[in-house]
Amino acid sequence: MDALRVTYRLEVEAGEAEERAEAIALEQTVEVPRVVVRDPFVEREILGRVESVSMADDGASLATIAYPAATTAFDPAQLLNVVFGMTSLQPDARCVDLELPTSLLEAFSGPRFGVEGLRKLVQVPDRALTCTAVKPMGLSVEALAVLLRTFARAGIDVVKDDQGLADHAFCPFEERVRTCLRAAAEVAEETGHHAVYAPNLIGTPSAVFEQLHIAEDLGARAVMTSPMLIGLPVFWELCAERSSLPVLAHPSFAGAQRFATDLLFGSLLRLYGADAVIFVGYAGRFGTPRAVCDSLADRLRRPWGPLLPALPVPGGGVQLENVEELVSFYGRDVMLLVGGSLQIEEGAELERSRAFVRSVGEASRA
Amino acid sequence: MDALRVTYRLEVEAGEAEERAEAIALEQTVEVPRVVVRDPFVEREILGRVESVSMADDGASLATIAYPAATTAFDPAQLLNVVFGMTSLQPDARCVDLELPTSLLEAFSGPRFGVEGLRKLVQVPDRALTCTAVKPMGLSVEALAVLLRTFARAGIDVVKDDQGLADHAFCPFEERVRTCLRAAAEVAEETGHHAVYAPNLIGTPSAVFEQLHIAEDLGARAVMTSPMLIGLPVFWELCAERSSLPVLAHPSFAGAQRFATDLLFGSLLRLYGADAVIFVGYAGRFGTPRAVCDSLADRLRRPWGPLLPALPVPGGGVQLENVEELVSFYGRDVMLLVGGSLQIEEGAELERSRAFVRSVGEASRA
Repeated sequence: MDALRVTYRLEVEAGEAEERAEAIALEQTVEVPRVVVRDPFVEREILGRVESVSMADDGASLATIAYPAATTAFDPAQLLNVVFGMTSLQPDARCVDLELPTSLLEAFSGPRFGVEGLRKLVQVPDRALTCTAVKPMGLSVEALAVLLRTFARAGIDVVKDDQGLADHAFCPFEERVRTCLRAAAEVAEETGHHAVYAPNLIGTPSAVFEQLHIAEDLGARAVMTSPMLIGLPVFWELCAERSSLPVLAHPSFAGAQRFATDLLFGSLLRLYGADAVIFVGYAGRFGTPRAVCDSLADRLRRPWGPLLPALPVPGGGVQLENVEELVSFYGRDVMLLVGGSLQIEEGAELERSRAFVRSVGEASRA
Repeated sequence: MDALRVTYRLEVEAGEAEERAEAIALEQTVEVPRVVVRDPFVEREILGRVESVSMADDGASLATIAYPAATTAFDPAQLLNVVFGMTSLQPDARCVDLELPTSLLEAFSGPRFGVEGLRKLVQVPDRALTCTAVKPMGLSVEALAVLLRTFARAGIDVVKDDQGLADHAFCPFEERVRTCLRAAAEVAEETGHHAVYAPNLIGTPSAVFEQLHIAEDLGARAVMTSPMLIGLPVFWELCAERSSLPVLAHPSFAGAQRFATDLLFGSLLRLYGADAVIFVGYAGRFGTPRAVCDSLADRLRRPWGPLLPALPVPGGGVQLENVEELVSFYGRDVMLLVGGSLQIEEGAELERSRAFVRSVGEASRA
């Protein structure tokens, strides 16, 4: 049987776990009481099968259910549906792991650039990469370009739009992308360092795909979007069928907290095609546990069928002061994302940015 | 100031609520420390402003923050971003309410058919409506059509696809829609009752819009989709710009439990254009509290700027036995969705379906 396997964490009494797992196997496939499953094809080829139920350290239960791959129709929306569609609405279940057969991995195909492609793009063979954002929302195009020049001059590898930069009247997408790309090119002529500017795609599918074309036409070399805002299947279509550029995934709106953080960011986004995945790491205001960050980064980079590894991009609390510790934690195949802290001291943006670049370089050599 | 207002429930010590709210006002707009906000336009026209902080009954705090409408770019993805983008990642905050100015309500426009349009469609001026699904996944097109004929003969108003019916090899979308529509038409000739068959749209935006065209071309009179699976902005584009038909929203994958249930299903889905919203009600295996169902239905139907009211469709536990109680709870502007329980007794599907239809009719007259 060509099957995917999904593991759920169940907050139920140990004696009830088996029965609860059986209910999920029904819920996620046929969504009818067992007695309604009479068709032999449905029984054999569609129904989920509970493969194991065990106890977690803290007394909750872990249930692994196998679903026939054919149930997903090899479609990005239907896969989510089979994995966690209705069960996501039941407060005692949390989706914590996912194991896919080769047939699904090949159908989804994953990152098209991955770590190596991104390294080639920024021409950095082996150190940890650097990233920041032009922000805040509300700045004019020219003011953002000023920031970008500063970051580029400092030698930052990737400068992305803040995820809050949409196609605002006060800062239109096309003008912003044209101006920022030009600014990066000018700095490249001046310094020899050509920072990659990644514009933020956001909106309906029509808007997102139009923004992509604009960015491609203007010569962008990477783009960013928030998969949970635009929708994971849109994200998949963007990555797999539309974009000629590497795509960075931003975590905004990933409030589906019942999806385990490492699964969502580490496995799903890679599966859907993210070449780099921004997430909120342990160092900072989100407090993702270190063990989760570790697992997340591992899921992005470890061997997984035919999928290229994707680059972890921890943000949300990266400071000049903890760069060394972060690089030692994540290793070199990482891109550190620093936000507002580069701008915390007016007039010192260039200096702070340079210090950031320097310390990442040093930490990577350590 | 043309502003939207968002209320967050904060699980913090009372003494910290004010500061936490100020942090969210920054997080959701500029996402930089306050000191970085130096541009006067950003300070005046972009920054969120904490309007009130109060104590909830249980000791948590409620904070209401006003965001300038312009921050949303009047875009369906960016609106989500401003409302709950990054804050959705912080475990102490839950987004519980949303108040939109006329400018945003007009930009989003809401349902295009609404309760009255759906009533006209099914030619039922004032009783509660009936709905079921052809299922389970895995049945052949012909087997589904057999079920549909049964339900139509019983006089059910709307027969939808199960949300698990995708464009599967064993049950292709186009063939399914053609066959089921024909079955409904045949029953109409035979009985005079023309059940509305609503096919399920699922996939990437390209696939969803293609499925819509197929359904429209074949003469479908309504469609269904799962907004959280395909993505809310896709859902908006489908409703607002693509579909000539009423659209039913299915709750699959709405695992974003930090969004309050009534807000997500009652307000957001209506705002995004759902003519009818399926949700898991208090009677059944999901256990949504009655008060939440009440608020949800109220949000769908109450006056809200220029938006038409949308139809609540409770499911997930509707049984023949509780129809009367449900209609008395929700009133007549409701559609009851019964799933597998109509099929629970083999050979009695028609009889059970008729009983369902009858009891809804009776309850509506009571």
